[in-house]
Amino acid sequence: SGLVLVKNPHLDLMEEDILYHLDLGTKTHNLPAMFGDIKFVCVGGSPNRMRAFAQLMQRELGLAGAGEEVADICAGSDRYAMYRAGPVLSISHGMGIPSISIMLHELIKLLHHAKCRDVTIIRMGTSGGLGIEAGSVVITDTAVDSSFQPRFEQVVLDDVVVRSTELDKDLAEELLACSRDIPDFPTLIGHTMCTYDFYEGQGRLDGALCSFSSEKKLDYLRRAYEAGVRNIEMESTAFAALCGLCGLKGKSCHFHLL
Amino acid sequence: SGLVLVKNPHLDLMEEDILYHLDLGTKTHNLPAMFGDIKFVCVGGSPNRMRAFAQLMQRELGLAGAGEEVADICAGSDRYAMYRAGPVLSISHGMGIPSISIMLHELIKLLHHAKCRDVTIIRMGTSGGLGIEAGSVVITDTAVDSSFQPRFEQVVLDDVVVRSTELDKDLAEELLACSRDIPDFPTLIGHTMCTYDFYEGQGRLDGALCSFSSEKKLDYLRRAYEAGVRNIEMESTAFAALCGLCGLKGKSCHFHLL
Repeated sequence: SGLVLVKNPHLDLMEEDILYHLDLGTKTHNLPAMFGDIKFVCVGGSPNRMRAFAQLMQRELGLAGAGEEVADICAGSDRYAMYRAGPVLSISHGMGIPSISIMLHELIKLLHHAKCRDVTIIRMGTSGGLGIEAGSVVITDTAVDSSFQPRFEQVVLDDVVVRSTELDKDLAEELLACSRDIPDFPTLIGHTMCTYDFYEGQGRLDGALCSFSSEKKLDYLRRAYEAGVRNIEMESTAFAALCGLCGLKGKSCHFHLL
Repeated sequence: SGLVLVKNPHLDLMEEDILYHLDLGTKTHNLPAMFGDIKFVCVGGSPNRMRAFAQLMQRELGLAGAGEEVADICAGSDRYAMYRAGPVLSISHGMGIPSISIMLHELIKLLHHAKCRDVTIIRMGTSGGLGIEAGSVVITDTAVDSSFQPRFEQVVLDDVVVRSTELDKDLAEELLACSRDIPDFPTLIGHTMCTYDFYEGQGRLDGALCSFSSEKKLDYLRRAYEAGVRNIEMESTAFAALCGLCGLKGKSCHFHLL
């Protein structure tokens, strides 16, 4: 049906669903009227960048109000920022898996309550590139963990549940085809590695703590490259797992600016 | 010596240290002049709250400029917000372990470069209480993981390193004594559980995904309570581990508003 799925039998029994971190709710807001026609959701870490992206979409789509300020739909909360431009929703998610997970749980419920159909979700973010030209865009086919495995380990109470992190191959090819129309826009499809840490987890030598040598770092990054990893960031496995489970998989993708 | 330690032999070899996410650096800023007299660092998730806290400190300490706006020292970055009021630095860290870890790596290097001495660091945050009166403040003695163990598992490249998460007991007692001077301010010392997820990880029944019953949730929370857990949040184990390793341990503490 193209609807966004929630997989939680308890939700039907609730009189009201409050999306705490978005400052929205089913009793305080008419979610179908506000969001029912959304077809694209673009997410990224930084609130300023997601506002700039919404303004770019306004101009590109020739919408009324283009060039003016866009209003933050979540202005009552400083956890995330959300903007819309026609059928495009642009939302920030902060840094790291826990931060994007909270946003995605509430976004998925929002799209579900709003009865949105056939929604494509794309994460756009900065990342560290591996063995690729500076400035390249990596379109993720599969998100992998720090052991290069295509999995996301979710702790549910005190159990660990392993979830798949594959992303939509057709959309990846479609985005790659789009990139070919833009001159000087080096773009490739590859695996994206997702870590829980920016410094010790990604082989950086300039954190407050660093216990490994430059050689050990290079050996690790070489092994990552050989496993197909082309860039490293901090949200992709949770993004792929959550979107996939909730019916956004068929249309989801994930790409990175280096 | 009371100095803040970095444990990274590579740092001494670097000509310049850029604190990317704070928009500060050793060549662009005179860090000892800007921060050398800092004695207290207070951290919390929300940028608005940390600004309000800095303004409160300005008033409480009777500083010039009290009641006026405070300037965001990291205004060039929208990742974190930083304010100062006399010897107190007030910084936001976003939500979750990865987000607070990036900030702490850069904060610890900042305090090190600025040659700060005898710094006390306190995290103040909202949390879910377990079997305690609503509105209580929990002062954390030990941060525990989702299996109630006092440890933080840090992935370093593809190894897992286990770190201690104990916090300073004397400071906890000192803060508890302060709370006794305030009427109607229920305060206790207990363990704080830190999770990677707000919904499935903390037994919430209202996420986009929920695979457990209300009974299983209650059983988990009961076991947490029996293990000494009095509140649940998403940053304490990484906070305790990183601060402890870098010489902030003797003076560090961690408390939570319910």
